[in-house]
Amino acid sequence: MSGEHLKMMRLALAEARKGVGKTAPNPAVGCVIVKDGAVVGKGWHKKAGTPHAEVHALRAAGALAEGADVYVTLEPCSHFGKTPPCAKALVEARVARVFVAMVDPNPLVSGRGIGMLREAGIEVEVGLLEAESRELNHPFIKWIQTRRPYVVLKSALTLDGMSATVSGDSKWVTSDAARREVHRLRGRLDAIMVGVGTVVKDDPLLTCRVPGGKDPLRVIVDSTLRIPRHAALFSLKSQAPTVIATCCDDPARVEAVVAHGVEVLVCKEKEGRVDLDDLLARLGERGVQSVLLEGGHHLAGAFVRGGLIDHCMLFLAPKFVGGAGTGLFAGEGVQLMADAIKLEEVKVKRIGVDLLVEGTPVKKQNH
Amino acid sequence: MSGEHLKMMRLALAEARKGVGKTAPNPAVGCVIVKDGAVVGKGWHKKAGTPHAEVHALRAAGALAEGADVYVTLEPCSHFGKTPPCAKALVEARVARVFVAMVDPNPLVSGRGIGMLREAGIEVEVGLLEAESRELNHPFIKWIQTRRPYVVLKSALTLDGMSATVSGDSKWVTSDAARREVHRLRGRLDAIMVGVGTVVKDDPLLTCRVPGGKDPLRVIVDSTLRIPRHAALFSLKSQAPTVIATCCDDPARVEAVVAHGVEVLVCKEKEGRVDLDDLLARLGERGVQSVLLEGGHHLAGAFVRGGLIDHCMLFLAPKFVGGAGTGLFAGEGVQLMADAIKLEEVKVKRIGVDLLVEGTPVKKQNH
Repeated sequence: MSGEHLKMMRLALAEARKGVGKTAPNPAVGCVIVKDGAVVGKGWHKKAGTPHAEVHALRAAGALAEGADVYVTLEPCSHFGKTPPCAKALVEARVARVFVAMVDPNPLVSGRGIGMLREAGIEVEVGLLEAESRELNHPFIKWIQTRRPYVVLKSALTLDGMSATVSGDSKWVTSDAARREVHRLRGRLDAIMVGVGTVVKDDPLLTCRVPGGKDPLRVIVDSTLRIPRHAALFSLKSQAPTVIATCCDDPARVEAVVAHGVEVLVCKEKEGRVDLDDLLARLGERGVQSVLLEGGHHLAGAFVRGGLIDHCMLFLAPKFVGGAGTGLFAGEGVQLMADAIKLEEVKVKRIGVDLLVEGTPVKKQNH
Repeated sequence: MSGEHLKMMRLALAEARKGVGKTAPNPAVGCVIVKDGAVVGKGWHKKAGTPHAEVHALRAAGALAEGADVYVTLEPCSHFGKTPPCAKALVEARVARVFVAMVDPNPLVSGRGIGMLREAGIEVEVGLLEAESRELNHPFIKWIQTRRPYVVLKSALTLDGMSATVSGDSKWVTSDAARREVHRLRGRLDAIMVGVGTVVKDDPLLTCRVPGGKDPLRVIVDSTLRIPRHAALFSLKSQAPTVIATCCDDPARVEAVVAHGVEVLVCKEKEGRVDLDDLLARLGERGVQSVLLEGGHHLAGAFVRGGLIDHCMLFLAPKFVGGAGTGLFAGEGVQLMADAIKLEEVKVKRIGVDLLVEGTPVKKQNH
């Protein structure tokens, strides 16, 4: 693929990137239209219910779209949803060629938009910078294919692997810069999840405290409904609701928690605790595409051992607790180092004085 | 300082670097002689007892040294040791100027070489790329100033902070590439140290297994002389000796260990264990300038809490044990996160699939 095509698709990806975190339940998509080597139109999808990227780009190009090349980061849609199908709009604009980074991940419609274009005699090339396009929409892709949210584990650890000292103190492991990055993350993901132990210990607000940030849905995993009645969460003013996920269906206890103005989500039980796979399925049903798992170590341990984590973001602070403390995962780890859970696509960068190590746990074949 | 001077001092540093790990008990030093903008001589110190860097460079420059500029990474020596003083040789060669990266760190002679040059009317500039020069000779600098070795903690950990699983299995945490790097480290440092627990558990050889590498002195910290009589170390063929450091002075037990052909070093006792500061002083007395502390977690914990670690090299493998295991440091850590031991000068790089995070623990004022 020539350098010119790559350059134009990169421009389309840059357009798409502007929408990341704002388009749910739709994916972030960008589009660039090129005529005689010049960009004559570009656009990105801004918000569900508003025009798609292709429509913005076509409007900008006007009559110049005829005979032009179109670069779009995701297969143009083929169906009437809240907006008319983009494949049809491209056909009507009489574009010459369409470069598509990735096919629609929705198994029910995948390939139909490309089919509509080809039937109309438009040349279509698929797969240019596909990996980069997937990267922008991991949560959407997982959710549309499995109806479960994409789970991001976030933790802050010392270099000797501790999230808290032996006394439970954790203020603060990382620097201000890393903590600001976490608040930005909260604003980009649909939900934030912690175990009730974290509520008992830290009494957190779980809000997104950066200017212009939107609060995520708050999910507290509380198998026995032991959340303290004076939890700060109960008196929180926020546009986003709080959900207490439990497997306790005792009506009196449920009613006592509901009385605080929060929702109680009664999930299946597994070994006396909330069945986390069922919880994820229920969150997916209500359109939650991404969850930021912030702890504590019991919940994180259950998630990692269940193969339920899609991505990890570990903020490593250059310090040592120097002995016993609270680690990342509580519970029974592997017996043999050879059976350790591997991470792929590992990236590392500095955030202030701290390091951010990211990676994707490799799922076993039986998951 | 002009770019030309920096360039020439960098060349002298590159010369010095060739000697790192080969010059003990001397430091690694490099020298470049420049006349009319051209390098007319350069050299590096190869081995104790052989000519210093300045002598090699002066020999190469010959008569061209007269009126030349000299760039040397360490202050020229002023005293007759195994070789005549370099400051005198520079005076006799009638060089015009001398650029010195750092003064001699030996407090007994520091500044004398520079004094000799200035008395002879030679212009001397001190401090050009000083940090880079110190970097090459951390062990020498610490040892010459304190008579104690420079202690490098090395460990291999999973991203959840474990050096072994709950069953004790640690084969292997990191990849081949990281383990080869550890063997190269062993060849560059004077001694390697482990606790007897590591000998009991892993029965290691503690040799440098890279082509052309030299074995370090092996030091086993064994407070009660419980080292197993069948330890692989006892039947090892190596040019470097093995020392068992203890605070047990029971003659029968000492004799039983000495009978295996190893040395027993009886140190002071502190709270029933080997006094590690005393052990370091004794190793320093015998000229050991650097120690690679490879574990286990009890010994590493005692070192870190004692403020006895000068540098850390943590190889982080992109994997999770996913629950309980053996961490980096055993024992009592800090109570408050604000009291955690900070690391400075943090560097991170990739070694194969693993990360190597290096840093320098900040010592408290009272150390």
